[in-house]
Amino acid sequence: MSRIWNFSAGPAALPEEVLRQAQEELLDWHGAGCSVMEMSHRGKEFGTILGQAEADLRELMGIPEQYKVLFLQGGATQQFAQIPMNLLAGRSADYIVTGSWSKKAFKEAQRIGNVRCAATTESSGFARLPVAEEIKLDPFAAYLHVCTNETIHGVEIPAERIADTGVPLVADMSSHILSRPVNVEKFGLIYAGAQKNIGPSGVTLVVVHRDLLGMAPLNIPTVMDYAVMAENGQRRKSTNFVFRHR
Amino acid sequence: MSRIWNFSAGPAALPEEVLRQAQEELLDWHGAGCSVMEMSHRGKEFGTILGQAEADLRELMGIPEQYKVLFLQGGATQQFAQIPMNLLAGRSADYIVTGSWSKKAFKEAQRIGNVRCAATTESSGFARLPVAEEIKLDPFAAYLHVCTNETIHGVEIPAERIADTGVPLVADMSSHILSRPVNVEKFGLIYAGAQKNIGPSGVTLVVVHRDLLGMAPLNIPTVMDYAVMAENGQRRKSTNFVFRHR
Repeated sequence: MSRIWNFSAGPAALPEEVLRQAQEELLDWHGAGCSVMEMSHRGKEFGTILGQAEADLRELMGIPEQYKVLFLQGGATQQFAQIPMNLLAGRSADYIVTGSWSKKAFKEAQRIGNVRCAATTESSGFARLPVAEEIKLDPFAAYLHVCTNETIHGVEIPAERIADTGVPLVADMSSHILSRPVNVEKFGLIYAGAQKNIGPSGVTLVVVHRDLLGMAPLNIPTVMDYAVMAENGQRRKSTNFVFRHR
Repeated sequence: MSRIWNFSAGPAALPEEVLRQAQEELLDWHGAGCSVMEMSHRGKEFGTILGQAEADLRELMGIPEQYKVLFLQGGATQQFAQIPMNLLAGRSADYIVTGSWSKKAFKEAQRIGNVRCAATTESSGFARLPVAEEIKLDPFAAYLHVCTNETIHGVEIPAERIADTGVPLVADMSSHILSRPVNVEKFGLIYAGAQKNIGPSGVTLVVVHRDLLGMAPLNIPTVMDYAVMAENGQRRKSTNFVFRHR
């Protein structure tokens, strides 16, 4: 067996020691008598795995207690819709467009509600960040959305250039999350597809400040309501194993 | 290592030979030099896996060409919302409520649009199927929803009792799919969480007739539009590998 070098910007290479541990545990996770793929998502074994993943991430990223950590499905692309569905609350939101991904996020949000383009560098071929005079912020915006690293166009927003604008900052960090320290408290919501910098594809990470929960309208799908997802997490941790049928 | 017997109605046991094959291929899938968890979802290797899974399922279930096979995320619970989002098209739909799961599906659909309860056996504690006189169908319904096997209350709709009502039949088959032959052509849409009868959790199967695609309003999340998901599948099969960044 020869392992290839993977320089793809898509799903990334996983450390060989992680793959070997997963391989060893694939038929019997820590003596549970079954694979992680066969155990109940409500059981204490999976609760341990989930709890440890959250604790490790909180430690690595320095995530304060007032932020919820959600492990969701649907990729960053689902978040492009889920964020305005949860946070707009009938208001408008601002988007800074610095490349393909923030442009996609903006276009998807336009399907959902009232959003504004606060700045775009598309006319320059997304070759640079906007300068301060090009950014027209709405002080009453529900949130300001940025993509802190544009994979395709290569434009990164340096952490030190992020100032408080008075509205919650929402950031797609898919392609550089966990590559350096981030001051989570600068953000209202951080999201990232797991497949680039965190782990295998299929999971999407959302780190969201508690104050932003509970604003979703009642007619969005239950699984897309951050408050419901955050509550599920709490319930799992605070109760013993209860048999549930699905 | 001793493997346990898993009689849970939740995530089910996987065949040991399947787990052993996954274990063997975990660091190097068929000489690709990487794990399935590290390869591009747009690459030819993953295309082969996906194509084979669809071909096998079409053969096992006898799925005709005019049906699309979609492998989605979000579980059957997301489908409870996604179905009315895609199929209502401003009309009303009928639900037959025979247990916990069809009741959940009905409640979730009420968040999305105009739906009717065509029959319920809740007053009998969901101990039986409704008799014909109890079912009040709307002949103009966008679809009729049933759960063909209610895991918790144990009520199953036998295949021979399913008659053509003149409207597309939508069925949650999560807990008995692939346990017996099903005449797919009786249904407009069949869905099932994979974790009970198909494979590990994380994937949701949707088998949908082509005629039901393309009715979703433009303001639902792109990832929830069946037509977009079906088109992605086609595109993947009809083109060679194209490098995409995410």
